[in-house]
Amino acid sequence: MTFIDLRSDTVTKPSAEMRKAMAEAEVGDDVYQEDPTVIELEKLSAEIMGHEAALFVCSGTMGNLVSLLTHCTRGDGAILGINSHIYVNEGGGLSALGGLVPLCVNDDEGIPKPQDVLSYCRPKNVHHAPAKLLCLENTHNACGGVAISPEAFSSMVDLAKSKGLSVHLDGARIFNAAIAWEVEPATYARLVDSVQFCLSKGLGAPMGSVICGNKSYIERARHWRKRVGGGLRQAGVVAAAGIVALKGYRDLANDHEKAKILRDRLANGGVKIAEVSKPTNMVYFEVEDALDVALLAERCKQRGVLFNPTPKKIRLVTHRDVSFEDVEKAAKVILEELRK
Amino acid sequence: MTFIDLRSDTVTKPSAEMRKAMAEAEVGDDVYQEDPTVIELEKLSAEIMGHEAALFVCSGTMGNLVSLLTHCTRGDGAILGINSHIYVNEGGGLSALGGLVPLCVNDDEGIPKPQDVLSYCRPKNVHHAPAKLLCLENTHNACGGVAISPEAFSSMVDLAKSKGLSVHLDGARIFNAAIAWEVEPATYARLVDSVQFCLSKGLGAPMGSVICGNKSYIERARHWRKRVGGGLRQAGVVAAAGIVALKGYRDLANDHEKAKILRDRLANGGVKIAEVSKPTNMVYFEVEDALDVALLAERCKQRGVLFNPTPKKIRLVTHRDVSFEDVEKAAKVILEELRK
Amino acid sequence: MTFIDLRSDTVTKPSAEMRKAMAEAEVGDDVYQEDPTVIELEKLSAEIMGHEAALFVCSGTMGNLVSLLTHCTRGDGAILGINSHIYVNEGGGLSALGGLVPLCVNDDEGIPKPQDVLSYCRPKNVHHAPAKLLCLENTHNACGGVAISPEAFSSMVDLAKSKGLSVHLDGARIFNAAIAWEVEPATYARLVDSVQFCLSKGLGAPMGSVICGNKSYIERARHWRKRVGGGLRQAGVVAAAGIVALKGYRDLANDHEKAKILRDRLANGGVKIAEVSKPTNMVYFEVEDALDVALLAERCKQRGVLFNPTPKKIRLVTHRDVSFEDVEKAAKVILEELRK
Amino acid sequence: MTFIDLRSDTVTKPSAEMRKAMAEAEVGDDVYQEDPTVIELEKLSAEIMGHEAALFVCSGTMGNLVSLLTHCTRGDGAILGINSHIYVNEGGGLSALGGLVPLCVNDDEGIPKPQDVLSYCRPKNVHHAPAKLLCLENTHNACGGVAISPEAFSSMVDLAKSKGLSVHLDGARIFNAAIAWEVEPATYARLVDSVQFCLSKGLGAPMGSVICGNKSYIERARHWRKRVGGGLRQAGVVAAAGIVALKGYRDLANDHEKAKILRDRLANGGVKIAEVSKPTNMVYFEVEDALDVALLAERCKQRGVLFNPTPKKIRLVTHRDVSFEDVEKAAKVILEELRK
Repeated sequence: MTFIDLRSDTVTKPSAEMRKAMAEAEVGDDVYQEDPTVIELEKLSAEIMGHEAALFVCSGTMGNLVSLLTHCTRGDGAILGINSHIYVNEGGGLSALGGLVPLCVNDDEGIPKPQDVLSYCRPKNVHHAPAKLLCLENTHNACGGVAISPEAFSSMVDLAKSKGLSVHLDGARIFNAAIAWEVEPATYARLVDSVQFCLSKGLGAPMGSVICGNKSYIERARHWRKRVGGGLRQAGVVAAAGIVALKGYRDLANDHEKAKILRDRLANGGVKIAEVSKPTNMVYFEVEDALDVALLAERCKQRGVLFNPTPKKIRLVTHRDVSFEDVEKAAKVILEELRK
Repeated sequence: MTFIDLRSDTVTKPSAEMRKAMAEAEVGDDVYQEDPTVIELEKLSAEIMGHEAALFVCSGTMGNLVSLLTHCTRGDGAILGINSHIYVNEGGGLSALGGLVPLCVNDDEGIPKPQDVLSYCRPKNVHHAPAKLLCLENTHNACGGVAISPEAFSSMVDLAKSKGLSVHLDGARIFNAAIAWEVEPATYARLVDSVQFCLSKGLGAPMGSVICGNKSYIERARHWRKRVGGGLRQAGVVAAAGIVALKGYRDLANDHEKAKILRDRLANGGVKIAEVSKPTNMVYFEVEDALDVALLAERCKQRGVLFNPTPKKIRLVTHRDVSFEDVEKAAKVILEELRK
Repeated sequence: MTFIDLRSDTVTKPSAEMRKAMAEAEVGDDVYQEDPTVIELEKLSAEIMGHEAALFVCSGTMGNLVSLLTHCTRGDGAILGINSHIYVNEGGGLSALGGLVPLCVNDDEGIPKPQDVLSYCRPKNVHHAPAKLLCLENTHNACGGVAISPEAFSSMVDLAKSKGLSVHLDGARIFNAAIAWEVEPATYARLVDSVQFCLSKGLGAPMGSVICGNKSYIERARHWRKRVGGGLRQAGVVAAAGIVALKGYRDLANDHEKAKILRDRLANGGVKIAEVSKPTNMVYFEVEDALDVALLAERCKQRGVLFNPTPKKIRLVTHRDVSFEDVEKAAKVILEELRK
Repeated sequence: MTFIDLRSDTVTKPSAEMRKAMAEAEVGDDVYQEDPTVIELEKLSAEIMGHEAALFVCSGTMGNLVSLLTHCTRGDGAILGINSHIYVNEGGGLSALGGLVPLCVNDDEGIPKPQDVLSYCRPKNVHHAPAKLLCLENTHNACGGVAISPEAFSSMVDLAKSKGLSVHLDGARIFNAAIAWEVEPATYARLVDSVQFCLSKGLGAPMGSVICGNKSYIERARHWRKRVGGGLRQAGVVAAAGIVALKGYRDLANDHEKAKILRDRLANGGVKIAEVSKPTNMVYFEVEDALDVALLAERCKQRGVLFNPTPKKIRLVTHRDVSFEDVEKAAKVILEELRK
């Protein structure tokens, strides 16, 4: 059976164009910084993000981890949304491996509230882990895939800077945010000290992420990347796919269209969609307490529709490998199964 | 000027009886486990707490840190109240030094809500830090010094056990809780895998805390105590004061009386006291936005009354070194200064 | 200019066959364990190494780091050669990220001496980091690329096991060792608890390593791999090259031949080669104090021959991307430049 | 039975004068930096060591740990003697808790060789943990209790400084070194960035050590001291004993005399004493392979003489609580038992 896979945009497979680029990529040993394709990807990434320099890393989790290790020493506090991917979905690596202290703030709206951030900007005191870094996530995955507005984002960064905090952007899906708000990715990215974005989510590359920052930052990040095992050799073979992916980022607009259709169809069918201020390629909805979500997922799977069940919430993610027809069909299947 | 010091019960000075005990203490090298007075204190502590074994440590922070290091390996998740002392006031040592991941839950009522704890008891998944330990705090300092009821406590421990979690009790002020609910400290302590209690808060000893658990736990904790630098030599000199302190724990009831007076006087004067379900030796109240708390603290200090100002909340702590007259006077001074 | 690159076997570029395999690889999302090509590579690796299970990782450093994180908790001691790659060339990640304590032993002969290993097998004592793991390296890079004999290896593993230690093999170049001693890689690998081998050194794949162990070990390693950022998505594109690389491992014999020629030519020219008991694809020689090694390297580079200068020692590494003619020419150039 | 306890100078018990000082000590809450006796001890310590500021800590291990945590971030390399107390006898805390990478050098003579230290001062490279700190130990416990000469010490510190390293002195027994070389402790201590010395070894205080450095260093160290649990309350009760101990440091000369007698007697009896260039209060000797050291220790214990057996070496430590008669008797007993 061919599945309509709405579990995540990470499932996207490399396109023919990517595979061709990989097969023909000029390569070198990237630990010696001699891989021309990696260098090209890093240069292109820095340009798009409005930063001085960039570094190819194996995954979004590695990009975030390396960034946090570079910004903070052991014992420093990183202000994090309590629903953020870094806090919830990266195995706690920032604490486990880096000795960072997560200073949790509410992020139900996708971006923390100023007063919550300020509450961690305390006078120096031996009792506290000092706040050194603010981490933002845009789009914010767990909060409905919401795209933070450039204004809200900019204003939060200003607040952080005024308190002496560095700012890292988990921009795994920053392109989705830029498209939703019709701005360039750099509109967000150039404001922060570092940004991580993923090539292997909606953009469709088989693997890899990129972090951007200034030259000194990237030089230090390169050391941490090596330590965590992210120093690759002829990485140009995968970077080549990344270049194709990156150049095509504007196609993500289609994914938002598909999500809108899914949202509309489900809402029309009576499903209570979790509304967010600026949606992107995700659709979240809660189901009744009585309903067994895992069972629903299983029944939809038998009809060719895949999604990730969580205790009470269902997330559907659109991407390049599901067509407009697919989302229509998926909506139909889900509605039918919900009514059973 | 002699101050009425309501900043904390940590300011209590050793009594004449304690000083005498210290001067006469029989001692040995405790790293070799040859200090008879330390051994006596540990034996007494284990008995009172209903545990197999005990270990003298330098401070409450050390007791909690050593306990968490003993229970958890790097990358394990510890479920913690977001206002708990371990999370907020111990410099983030659990992450900074131990690589533990704090899994934060709401603890506004002093004890977390079952559903919040359950939300972290997730199926094994590479994305998550697995929850291994639940930390409770009783009395809960930042939540008004509230004493958790034996029923609520027991029920929460049962829940945790049913999910395979270990439970650590930050019982810095467990004696205050026991007195407030008119039960033995062991009523709480024997339910958990480990408990830390402080000799140097309301009990009045100059320094030191004790952790209790089973023999294997204490043996492993001894290793971590040594690593953090808590292996002392002739520690009997301070343990002697701890024994006196411990034997007199029932005197803490007076502190609760003093706090009640303080609460009544301030409430009668129109102050909006933060009410908690079962108060102990702390009085919290919020002040109007307009008021400069630091200035109020400074003016009270000039009149001989000390307390710790926080942005908008004021905490007053009663203890053996403030008399009933002192609290009457302190209430008067604070009310007068509030009215200025 | 086309260079004869003797800096390392990491510089090998993917062959046409590998590129074809990459272009045609069937892929899936490997975080969901759905990439068939990765699964095939892991299955093949486990078979070759005589282990139950395997895990694809991004690099040798990641393979070693994840292995050590899986075997040991914070504070455990890992017995390591003082010249081993893990201790010297992986940024100290085992301590920096994992809190492991390196217990250093002499490894001048490539394998530690029994009495040195035994000296760390101490009775439990609060003063010491307890030895939990022995790490071996075969071939041993910094010690002349020497291949440890199956007998010496087996006897050291027996010793470690008798003391309750786990054993990890940094087998970045285990295939070179197997070929040198004319045994199967499993002759070494099946003796140990875990082994890491590299696809991207002499085997020629563009990136990636594999770790092997039992199922429970690999399951736990998967968690650590995710935390360090090694959870990839459509990793099959690179695993496909790894499969080709792995199947061709017997070709490494040629590299040993080339190194032998290099060694003979240089020795005949009067160079004092560092002799090792069983050489592989590396040639080390020391130069006179007076000689500026960096200058020598620069002059050879101008004549098309690359190697890595270290303060007084020169290492030449042969691999598939240098031909027999290349090594003849390189020997000639180096001898001429040494005589200048 | 009263024992002649030569296991360590840590077994010294507080004198009557110390107990009196403790009983009468003026105290305050040292977390609030309000304990006058602690402040006095810190002031006196800084003066003696020729440093700007000082901090009272619970133990030598804590003093070293806090110092290393303050100097280095996670992943930094600390150059350490392979026999040093920090590396061998502090549970590996620097790596376990701090993520520091021990860069081991030979210290058989008590002080490392310049070329070994230089070998770790490498150009920046992603493969290495960068050397940031050199740790020296004086007197060097495991290397015979040897006192490093002021010249050798000073020259090593100069070398380190010229390479941009910070220097920490584990001066647990720095007073013994100063007395042996007839210089002030500051002759050594003022050269380094930080020094730790113990009050509870030969000086006889029941517990505690002090670290010294500049003001900024001590302020940061205070934060780490709190995190590891070394923030005490009315610490003046023990600091008072420390002040008495510190003022009497010149009495340590007697311990050296006693060790000399022990050495002479044993040598005259045919024992092969481990000679060191400048001995202090320790006597080391090796015994024949055939001899069971644990059995010897047990037999001597039955005759009232205690020492710590290690596999083949015996260490005897003299201190204020063994008299000249005691050492004569101990020598006699040991010789007799050795001859059996």
